[in-house]
Amino acid sequence: MIVILRPDATEDQIQHILKKAEELGLKANISRGVERTVIGFIGPEDVLRVTPLEIFPGVEQVIPVLAPYRLVSREFKKENSVIKIKKGVEVGGQKISVMAGPCSIESYDSLLAVAKKVKAAGATILRGGAFKPRTSPYDFQGLEEEGLKYLKQVGEEVGIATITEVMDPRQVELIDRYVDIYQIGARNMQNFSLLKEVGATHKPVMLKRGLSATIKDWLMSAEYILAKGNFNVMLCERGIRTFETATRNTMDINAIPLVKQLSHLPVIADPSHGTGRWDLVASIAKASVAAGCDGLMIEVHGNPEEALSDGSQSLKPENFTTLMHELKAVAKAVGRDI
Amino acid sequence: MIVILRPDATEDQIQHILKKAEELGLKANISRGVERTVIGFIGPEDVLRVTPLEIFPGVEQVIPVLAPYRLVSREFKKENSVIKIKKGVEVGGQKISVMAGPCSIESYDSLLAVAKKVKAAGATILRGGAFKPRTSPYDFQGLEEEGLKYLKQVGEEVGIATITEVMDPRQVELIDRYVDIYQIGARNMQNFSLLKEVGATHKPVMLKRGLSATIKDWLMSAEYILAKGNFNVMLCERGIRTFETATRNTMDINAIPLVKQLSHLPVIADPSHGTGRWDLVASIAKASVAAGCDGLMIEVHGNPEEALSDGSQSLKPENFTTLMHELKAVAKAVGRDI
Amino acid sequence: MIVILRPDATEDQIQHILKKAEELGLKANISRGVERTVIGFIGPEDVLRVTPLEIFPGVEQVIPVLAPYRLVSREFKKENSVIKIKKGVEVGGQKISVMAGPCSIESYDSLLAVAKKVKAAGATILRGGAFKPRTSPYDFQGLEEEGLKYLKQVGEEVGIATITEVMDPRQVELIDRYVDIYQIGARNMQNFSLLKEVGATHKPVMLKRGLSATIKDWLMSAEYILAKGNFNVMLCERGIRTFETATRNTMDINAIPLVKQLSHLPVIADPSHGTGRWDLVASIAKASVAAGCDGLMIEVHGNPEEALSDGSQSLKPENFTTLMHELKAVAKAVGRDI
Amino acid sequence: MIVILRPDATEDQIQHILKKAEELGLKANISRGVERTVIGFIGPEDVLRVTPLEIFPGVEQVIPVLAPYRLVSREFKKENSVIKIKKGVEVGGQKISVMAGPCSIESYDSLLAVAKKVKAAGATILRGGAFKPRTSPYDFQGLEEEGLKYLKQVGEEVGIATITEVMDPRQVELIDRYVDIYQIGARNMQNFSLLKEVGATHKPVMLKRGLSATIKDWLMSAEYILAKGNFNVMLCERGIRTFETATRNTMDINAIPLVKQLSHLPVIADPSHGTGRWDLVASIAKASVAAGCDGLMIEVHGNPEEALSDGSQSLKPENFTTLMHELKAVAKAVGRDI
Repeated sequence: MIVILRPDATEDQIQHILKKAEELGLKANISRGVERTVIGFIGPEDVLRVTPLEIFPGVEQVIPVLAPYRLVSREFKKENSVIKIKKGVEVGGQKISVMAGPCSIESYDSLLAVAKKVKAAGATILRGGAFKPRTSPYDFQGLEEEGLKYLKQVGEEVGIATITEVMDPRQVELIDRYVDIYQIGARNMQNFSLLKEVGATHKPVMLKRGLSATIKDWLMSAEYILAKGNFNVMLCERGIRTFETATRNTMDINAIPLVKQLSHLPVIADPSHGTGRWDLVASIAKASVAAGCDGLMIEVHGNPEEALSDGSQSLKPENFTTLMHELKAVAKAVGRDI
Repeated sequence: MIVILRPDATEDQIQHILKKAEELGLKANISRGVERTVIGFIGPEDVLRVTPLEIFPGVEQVIPVLAPYRLVSREFKKENSVIKIKKGVEVGGQKISVMAGPCSIESYDSLLAVAKKVKAAGATILRGGAFKPRTSPYDFQGLEEEGLKYLKQVGEEVGIATITEVMDPRQVELIDRYVDIYQIGARNMQNFSLLKEVGATHKPVMLKRGLSATIKDWLMSAEYILAKGNFNVMLCERGIRTFETATRNTMDINAIPLVKQLSHLPVIADPSHGTGRWDLVASIAKASVAAGCDGLMIEVHGNPEEALSDGSQSLKPENFTTLMHELKAVAKAVGRDI
Repeated sequence: MIVILRPDATEDQIQHILKKAEELGLKANISRGVERTVIGFIGPEDVLRVTPLEIFPGVEQVIPVLAPYRLVSREFKKENSVIKIKKGVEVGGQKISVMAGPCSIESYDSLLAVAKKVKAAGATILRGGAFKPRTSPYDFQGLEEEGLKYLKQVGEEVGIATITEVMDPRQVELIDRYVDIYQIGARNMQNFSLLKEVGATHKPVMLKRGLSATIKDWLMSAEYILAKGNFNVMLCERGIRTFETATRNTMDINAIPLVKQLSHLPVIADPSHGTGRWDLVASIAKASVAAGCDGLMIEVHGNPEEALSDGSQSLKPENFTTLMHELKAVAKAVGRDI
Repeated sequence: MIVILRPDATEDQIQHILKKAEELGLKANISRGVERTVIGFIGPEDVLRVTPLEIFPGVEQVIPVLAPYRLVSREFKKENSVIKIKKGVEVGGQKISVMAGPCSIESYDSLLAVAKKVKAAGATILRGGAFKPRTSPYDFQGLEEEGLKYLKQVGEEVGIATITEVMDPRQVELIDRYVDIYQIGARNMQNFSLLKEVGATHKPVMLKRGLSATIKDWLMSAEYILAKGNFNVMLCERGIRTFETATRNTMDINAIPLVKQLSHLPVIADPSHGTGRWDLVASIAKASVAAGCDGLMIEVHGNPEEALSDGSQSLKPENFTTLMHELKAVAKAVGRDI
């Protein structure tokens, strides 16, 4: 922690700060410049983070030296983490994993039909929502446990891993019985009770970035899961909220290579939510692969015009198949497979 | 719902849209202009909201006619809602209510000391967190049930109503036994499981606006609570996330008069989180009263330098007392009491 | 300037950085902690700001110690600056100045009529645009020099000071002949040629904050004007761009007290642009006064329905008169006059 | 234009609106629904855009039917525009053009050295700033005309086209004598005087997107140039301002395919400014090509540690050469050349 003092800080104020440091068991290094005096604290920064040094009299600015996350950082673990989903399916290695399927699970038959098609096109993980976080209480809220059953049955029948969103700590155990990966949605990125609950399991978790979460916030939320003992975490960039209204969200493409620098965890890109428009999904999926993502999540629906949610950002199965073909070429161009 | 067609929309595409309208039991009004054809749908808009008309071939743009919220709107209820907290304490009337207290409950003694001072200065509701949503898993997470007990005891001893944050649907029943108002924090504004759970009680709820929630999103989250039967809802503006880094958040002062136009629910202003800096709290509290808020929530701590959370935005009791004195003059200037 | 090194920084890399410091004539203070080594540079920070230390091998982070602005800062000048506009009119003192008038000057008669009314209500400065920065090339671009003539004539006839926007360095001399205050609009906040040009005059300048300018950016733009020798600068907060669409802009009310802390320059609030809606102007004007602004700029039009620009955010003269009456009470409540 | 009325709109209010429509020579189509009455105006929308219908009594919402831009739209011109820069160099065709070079021109020798290297690597346009828009008045402001001379000489010697930023309408004629393409910087995107001035020439213009410009705003600024007669316009996405602080800007990758849908103009991507970090430039350059950009602008400096501006986002020539090699593979994967 570095403390920059105001130009008019008094000697008493400096002593007051140094006394605090001593109480906390830290050493202090004082550097008196022409315009400002700067105090550097040497020792474990965690004890200082909870002390509001910025309001101590005479203090102008407080600057942390260390990032607040540890377990998720590249500094903690140099090699890429590879998450094992089930036999033959892993995320974070040389091969880019593709998760595809409908926004909501609507029926056994429609899910089965889509699952067969996305698997044939190369997807290895089937997505489908059973508990839906809808902005309006009057919109379709999902099939709940019935949907989970369909997802498990279809996954087994087709031979594809599965992912679904968990919205409530009370659903964690239930969902555990039916699916392979927990998804934490953007709106729950800082639902800390939920993070702790999935952190106490060993099942893979895909953590979506919140609509206005900084990259630091996002990594801190992942830290919650790792701190509870579950290291099987994937991060998913799905667009942030900006002033732009022509797209539903703004895909933060910079986040992909940046998070790969800062963390050992795999990064998934979700161009369906990242744009909110089916006619932009293909371009942004290719861009995400070119930028270095480890996986993609893409909404696919047999008949988007009749979808109960997110129809406007879903691809038809035939467009998804074409896209997968195009993605192979882009992946190869950046030294990856798909 | 109004649908604007592309200039090259074909007659077949128009018929396809009209057929859909008919299936949904809606009448359509077609207006053929020089540059665009426009279709207006007459009938209940809810059935259309879930149909992704924007991806129907030939469609350029889809525009809803109605706001998606009903129960929270001024159209539903013209008069201001006044929420009864307990005997002698209500929010939403001519008198502006002040909620004050520490960010976290740290001990019985410190809470009691602050409670006496804020009550003496004019606050009618004591705030204090027992379950804390902290960005870092390594930071103080609150005293939990022990904290709730202190809050109840202090509330009774001092004669002041109480509010605390609920973060998890499993805490709703527990908190119900100890406090007068549920607070839903900004990070949980779209934790729909939690909204439904507090919606199923009759206790007052203060719903904070999410960091990047539009006013429409915020009202839709309140709608979740009302739709479950609980109309005792207060809205709290606590700053939004913008590009500005000199303050922790950007207080959206426009939201205060705007929400008062759109909704009958009371609006509380939280200048402590809205700025993140104790030295801006007084100015922004006065501004919020001048803009028409129905209540204020202000963090007050006996010794901010030692606070376990949010010390940098907490007022000392003596500064709070001075502020209350100044606020009386501003309230009077806009025809209110405090 | 403080440089935090990566944990794996080598001794050679440290020497390379120290050599650079020496070349620039700076002293360095090295502090070797358990997890990071930190180097503090002592000496004039300006020479370092142009050196991209963050790309030197081994560097993790570079942190400036000083704000980049000097002349505009409270550190440079402790007392509030009071800008003399003309005999009897000044901005920045105990009395809050009100600038009012139409968005665009449309005719001599309409300007005269509005000027008389706003003066009668207490405004001391008349606003009116002759050169209009319109988003569309097909919208009304202003009456240009003809408009300036009207502004001068009306100002003299009514006995009120005048302000108009300058958009182009080539207009500076022309406008100088007709009006009392240059306004630099939000879209030109970083039009550095224009800033230098008005900086070379002695006429008062009101510098609006850019739509996505941080407070630091804004103060740096003011610094351009002062650095050229013109210290007669007022800052105008007029709303920033956020994700919110219910209002045209988001008034950043925090900016008012914060800029008053950081700078000695007067701060004007513009609730007309800050909200974009005439029905929010009164509330936000009162909030701005309560927050400590030194002046207000409010759009007033004799018949907003027929205004050639910004009709939707303009007050009618009678509403302006009512507002002025209400503002007097709020000003008094915070120890000011209006 | 579509007008949605309030539920309590009176017949008189409706007649008042219809009368206005008639005055403007428009036909009106009234549709009375259960909850709202909607009026559609048929006829040229431009005359209505300047009328603030939203403040007419009884009006709830006004919705434009047409985009406000015409000449830049795909509707106006279906085929991609290909801009001829000079013999053998064009932008907007099958081949992706690369503009590279230093942020600022610092000397003849350093510019020549970089120009040779970027040309050898495949760049066809040399960038270099002579007039620099710097946030601080104390930072290097560029070599001005001397820099332009170097740029012309180096361009001729090496056989490469040239681009430089124009900041002031008074520089347009001067720059015309020395370079092939005008660059309008992000901070001047709505400097309408400047847009009109370059619009009156026939030289190609690259218009950068403003830091908080919506895509509509950006296209409207391009419309200013086309409306003056200059159709040789390229659009450059260079990152927008968001809450994220880990990168200098947030590259809006969605903007690339979206603008290609809306407009016939070529789209250039600037990953140097889009990220602000040299170590992210390669990933984002590849992503931009995969997303469909028509050109790239990349900062390259012989010795970034000594650069007078933007050193932290500049590539060394050898890294640029490697990147160009990698880009060829990505371009091929999406059916383009580079």
